Amino acid sequence: MATTAALVVPAAGAKFERSTVERRELRERDVLIDIKYAGICHSDIHQAKEEWGRGTYPLVPGHEIAGVVAAVGPAVTKYAVGDRVGVGCFVDSCGECEACEADEEQYCLKGAVPTYNGKGYDGETTYGGYSQSVVVTEHFVVRIPESLPFDAAAPLLCAGITVYSPLRHWNAGPGTKVAVVGLGGLGHMAVKIAHALGAEVTVLSQTLSKESDGLRLGADHYYATGDKATFKTLRRSFDLIINTVSANLPLDAYLGLLRLNGTMVNLGAPPQASSFSVFSLLGGRRSLAGSSVGGIRETQEMLDFCAEHGIASEIELIGADEVDEAYERVLRSDVRYRFVIDIATLAQE
Amino acid sequence: MATTAALVVPAAGAKFERSTVERRELRERDVLIDIKYAGICHSDIHQAKEEWGRGTYPLVPGHEIAGVVAAVGPAVTKYAVGDRVGVGCFVDSCGECEACEADEEQYCLKGAVPTYNGKGYDGETTYGGYSQSVVVTEHFVVRIPESLPFDAAAPLLCAGITVYSPLRHWNAGPGTKVAVVGLGGLGHMAVKIAHALGAEVTVLSQTLSKESDGLRLGADHYYATGDKATFKTLRRSFDLIINTVSANLPLDAYLGLLRLNGTMVNLGAPPQASSFSVFSLLGGRRSLAGSSVGGIRETQEMLDFCAEHGIASEIELIGADEVDEAYERVLRSDVRYRFVIDIATLAQE
Repeated sequence: MATTAALVVPAAGAKFERSTVERRELRERDVLIDIKYAGICHSDIHQAKEEWGRGTYPLVPGHEIAGVVAAVGPAVTKYAVGDRVGVGCFVDSCGECEACEADEEQYCLKGAVPTYNGKGYDGETTYGGYSQSVVVTEHFVVRIPESLPFDAAAPLLCAGITVYSPLRHWNAGPGTKVAVVGLGGLGHMAVKIAHALGAEVTVLSQTLSKESDGLRLGADHYYATGDKATFKTLRRSFDLIINTVSANLPLDAYLGLLRLNGTMVNLGAPPQASSFSVFSLLGGRRSLAGSSVGGIRETQEMLDFCAEHGIASEIELIGADEVDEAYERVLRSDVRYRFVIDIATLAQE
Repeated sequence: MATTAALVVPAAGAKFERSTVERRELRERDVLIDIKYAGICHSDIHQAKEEWGRGTYPLVPGHEIAGVVAAVGPAVTKYAVGDRVGVGCFVDSCGECEACEADEEQYCLKGAVPTYNGKGYDGETTYGGYSQSVVVTEHFVVRIPESLPFDAAAPLLCAGITVYSPLRHWNAGPGTKVAVVGLGGLGHMAVKIAHALGAEVTVLSQTLSKESDGLRLGADHYYATGDKATFKTLRRSFDLIINTVSANLPLDAYLGLLRLNGTMVNLGAPPQASSFSVFSLLGGRRSLAGSSVGGIRETQEMLDFCAEHGIASEIELIGADEVDEAYERVLRSDVRYRFVIDIATLAQE
């Protein structure tokens, strides 16, 4: 075992403390990664506050990890010391079920092992990326192309793949009209990626306060959902709605924006039940769907796509002592568009 | 105008009366059909009782029409006097929108004209198939193959196409597992057609009371949804769930039965809002969808498919004076599996 510095949440809802966690000795196919940057995802906050079922404390969040390979196990073939790599939302899966065999490990029937606040198949608690190093089996490590800035690439490991996967699965591209609901961490990546895929992109945000940003990021149109006329103007407009908002939305109003055969994909889930009328689906053979991150193969594809198109996240880089404040700002939607922790600052005191 | 005998509902919720309605003179592309049989669909009952918004009375239900061509307008090319034909749920559409151009007239953006209780683009009220004749533009008339029994073919025009369309759209076939929820008028057709398409078919019914019927009709498995163990046993089993029940179901329980990328298609809509948790969609990239009958091209395809596979509806043939009683029996689910009115009996008094 090796000890590594980490930012830990000692108990549900408590503030961060500088502490340490243990990382396992390298197994045959393990990669030791020196973490350089870790993105802050809204789900980190949910789990730090124990809002998603029982948490295991102390807890180290972080599943948007960018770093450099520091050592490899004897059977590792994909990576060598010095490689630029990333780790996303899960670090193991059964490898044998229909989901794993389809390279969709995120839907592993045995349950993919979360990067933090989970238990590995060996029974050990997992600790995430707000720390100086992490040990991950090579299959669950992806390569970060040289042309992507390291810090702005970190959020691609969750925010990026979470929007890329449904955009690809539901065939966003030339000739399709995509709406992105919410211009936050996920939404701003959805706009960039959908635009790069060639789709016509519309942002649906509560107000027009971020309109110039949205258009700069690649949106063709920008509408305020606080204005009821929007739902009339845009009736039956979209092939695909990517909903990045995890609060309860008036689903029937949004479903009315879909064209024939259109799909509204939800990427977050409100804790309360959602309500809708089946009539909203019948008229136009519409679908309400859900999507959860993406598989390892697709995550690598997304990183390569982003490198090719010069896409990364818009970030605010912060130090290790600014995470509590950053969490508060995320809850106020006061971030454009993703906080990333400079892990070098973990060592500075 | 020509007068034709009909069974009319004089006011919302009233009993049927023998009366007459007017049918228009043949226009260029019109077909006059002598109706032989008319199926009773649950939606006839909803509209006779004014449960689906405002009705126009007197009302003549009936959108599962089988008959013989009695006359044709001068520009008709598809049909000749004596042809066996059918009419389903709609009798006109705009012909110009993206839905019509895709042969999906049921989703016409201007609104397809319902076969009864609707208004044509000419402003005239439409009257349905519980009558001796009907006049319909040839595009909205389909051919009933010689090998299909006329009476048992009538329900294919709504019940048949309503299940055929989603089974085809969502690719039911060899290697796919399909669940059919509810073994009624739609459900029993879904079992027959899904089986003929080569899918592995499971019926999910409240009890096992119709199990032997279900297996005889083509189901491979039959489970009672009243038994909670069913939802555990069948967890993550199906690629497609065809829900023919229009009462509110516990959607999360049913969504849990879907495999990766599975879809639950709803064919009926409860008047009350439906409730579900988005989490049920996220785990497995599942979809909740709706589907409404099918287009004219697909309806013809369905009839030809049924003829090829020797499929028709299981029916109870009734006389014109038994319709009120039949409605009561439908409401008690006491029909195996579709009532069909022998229109010849309309003339017998």
